[in-house]
Amino acid sequence: MPHLTLEYSANLQDTGDFGTLCQQLAQTLIAQQADGKAVYPIGGVRVRALAALDYCIADGRPDAAFVHATLKIGAGRSNDTQKRTGDALFEVMKNHFAAIYQQTGLALSLEINEFSESGSWKHNNLHARFR
Amino acid sequence: MPHLTLEYSANLQDTGDFGTLCQQLAQTLIAQQADGKAVYPIGGVRVRALAALDYCIADGRPDAAFVHATLKIGAGRSNDTQKRTGDALFEVMKNHFAAIYQQTGLALSLEINEFSESGSWKHNNLHARFR
Amino acid sequence: MPHLTLEYSANLQDTGDFGTLCQQLAQTLIAQQADGKAVYPIGGVRVRALAALDYCIADGRPDAAFVHATLKIGAGRSNDTQKRTGDALFEVMKNHFAAIYQQTGLALSLEINEFSESGSWKHNNLHARFR
Repeated sequence: MPHLTLEYSANLQDTGDFGTLCQQLAQTLIAQQADGKAVYPIGGVRVRALAALDYCIADGRPDAAFVHATLKIGAGRSNDTQKRTGDALFEVMKNHFAAIYQQTGLALSLEINEFSESGSWKHNNLHARFR
Repeated sequence: MPHLTLEYSANLQDTGDFGTLCQQLAQTLIAQQADGKAVYPIGGVRVRALAALDYCIADGRPDAAFVHATLKIGAGRSNDTQKRTGDALFEVMKNHFAAIYQQTGLALSLEINEFSESGSWKHNNLHARFR
Repeated sequence: MPHLTLEYSANLQDTGDFGTLCQQLAQTLIAQQADGKAVYPIGGVRVRALAALDYCIADGRPDAAFVHATLKIGAGRSNDTQKRTGDALFEVMKNHFAAIYQQTGLALSLEINEFSESGSWKHNNLHARFR
């Protein structure tokens, strides 16, 4: 963890270049710092994108698309750290879709949630590779 | 926002007509009123459906399907408004699948959650088109 | 309910055998007991898996994969019951992917959340078939 999931309308599948976007968002998470230290461990970063083949945006007009991002992080980061993370990720999303935003209806959104403290399990051989 | 996400077992992909269902659910959200005003802004409505290719329902019997809907809305709507919204959406879902419900095992469900107050970001050119 | 959703990187699509895994996880949920009674009703069990075609794990290295499981259950189960459920499910996941874990970068994770008390709707003809 952190986990970032993008959901998007399938009319962006050809033009949205989600592979590149996932890379950029992962690098943005890795680059976050607080008190001179990385906020998120590299080995915990997972960004993914899911296309929705069926969807209805607003009143169903065809010239509209959406991308919704949900970031889930471990509990305990400060509000300030969360806000800076969200600002940085959302800036990447806005830049990535700037040209499409000029041409068609587009709704971008991002939310941040914390994993519940009580119940989470992990088994991960990636952390060891970054030590 | 509001965001409505349907998850469904892929054995409904051919018969479920999720494109039509997404349209009807979006119209239902748009039609919600409280104190004579729209509860949800048209430009914020996003309904989408995601098919799960692999799944196991109950004990794995093949004659079973599911559709699970998750509605996420901004914080602050009254319990009464939320209940009326859920009732209206679920009525649409039950009607849409009434024939399938007679023929096979089917589990329909809907939950409502609020977006966390602290962290959400939006960039949306759809609202301006409905003013 | 309970609902268990697996998200996974699409590089596991051929080797991950998610159909079998969904079956095993459903059986694990059905087998959970507290005070000599089943914790989760059979007719409410729904396990599904969603592949993410675009993703970035850690710094984007290609020899890495992930599977993230989210269990949602009705409110009111004890912490102990939740922990035993999570332990049992995660044991199945670790066993299922043991060989892959030896060969490549792999991050497995599981979280448990409760459905909100206030808003959920159900319409389900499966329960009657198990009485």
